[in-house]
Amino acid sequence: MFKLSVALIHSPVVNRNKEIVTSSVTNLDLHDIARAGCTYGIERYFVVHPSGDQQALNRRIINHWQGAYGEHANPTRRPALDLIDLVQDLDEGLEYFKKAEQPEPMLIGTSARVLPTKTLQIVDLKAQLETRPVVLVFGTAYGLSDAWMERLEGFLPPIYGPTKYNHLSVRSAVSIYLDRIFGS
Amino acid sequence: MFKLSVALIHSPVVNRNKEIVTSSVTNLDLHDIARAGCTYGIERYFVVHPSGDQQALNRRIINHWQGAYGEHANPTRRPALDLIDLVQDLDEGLEYFKKAEQPEPMLIGTSARVLPTKTLQIVDLKAQLETRPVVLVFGTAYGLSDAWMERLEGFLPPIYGPTKYNHLSVRSAVSIYLDRIFGS
Repeated sequence: MFKLSVALIHSPVVNRNKEIVTSSVTNLDLHDIARAGCTYGIERYFVVHPSGDQQALNRRIINHWQGAYGEHANPTRRPALDLIDLVQDLDEGLEYFKKAEQPEPMLIGTSARVLPTKTLQIVDLKAQLETRPVVLVFGTAYGLSDAWMERLEGFLPPIYGPTKYNHLSVRSAVSIYLDRIFGS
Repeated sequence: MFKLSVALIHSPVVNRNKEIVTSSVTNLDLHDIARAGCTYGIERYFVVHPSGDQQALNRRIINHWQGAYGEHANPTRRPALDLIDLVQDLDEGLEYFKKAEQPEPMLIGTSARVLPTKTLQIVDLKAQLETRPVVLVFGTAYGLSDAWMERLEGFLPPIYGPTKYNHLSVRSAVSIYLDRIFGS
């Protein structure tokens, strides 16, 4: 049985006008997704951003909570933030699996839209974990650009409640997907 | 059939030393919980804080997204943020139900700890909604103080994944509870 990992993509993603952009990092994307990931037992949390300056900011935030003051102030943050790999692109993140001598992971996307093809149900994702690791890929801003449609093997269905509104934060979306996959 | 509401409590809550404190507001608590609440069709989102200055900050954040610039930049925020009532204490929030000529709501708490009494399962919470509104009460910081234990009629079980780690952000916890209650 292999484990799930999460990748949070900041580039290429789309903005509200569907233009391809690189988004800025968000402090609570690090914390909230790492804490949810730790709760549900993921293997790695890849924070993918091409900018060295933005990754330096992420590193500073993580180091704060892993340093003497931060670890005293809140010792439960370290095991969560330990899951984070700051990488320039997804390929750099996938090196992890080569080094760990694991099979090449299945790359599964998420989207707030219902996509015409490649829908993968959660039960099928769990079946994949019997044979290889899976990386669940989330886009920041208004979501993954079309360039990702070809690269990803499948997409989980969007999250809906009883309304037509489905503008969840990426922090909420990751939490809910992890609970749907691994919650009791 | 009545609806669920959410209350986010900033006072009295406990800090890491179990001292009773008032916590500061967090910008993304407004957005993330309002967006999740809108997705799952809640009635109101009560943001409970006794400080006029802190509520003025909340008001300014909300007004930004409901003003001309904010609504142009992201028109999906208004219906979510419209759910928010900024109130000084929970009683002020509960006035809403009197004005709406609804029955007095059941007040249900949440906690990361397993509490010795008053556990209420989600199926029982849903049954309550047949006869009266329910307000689901969340504590910021390290959670609701003991003073809430008497006032609240019951507590949902804590959220666990397959690990022993259960230090979710309140934003994640609200999202997951709403999905467990109303998700398909």
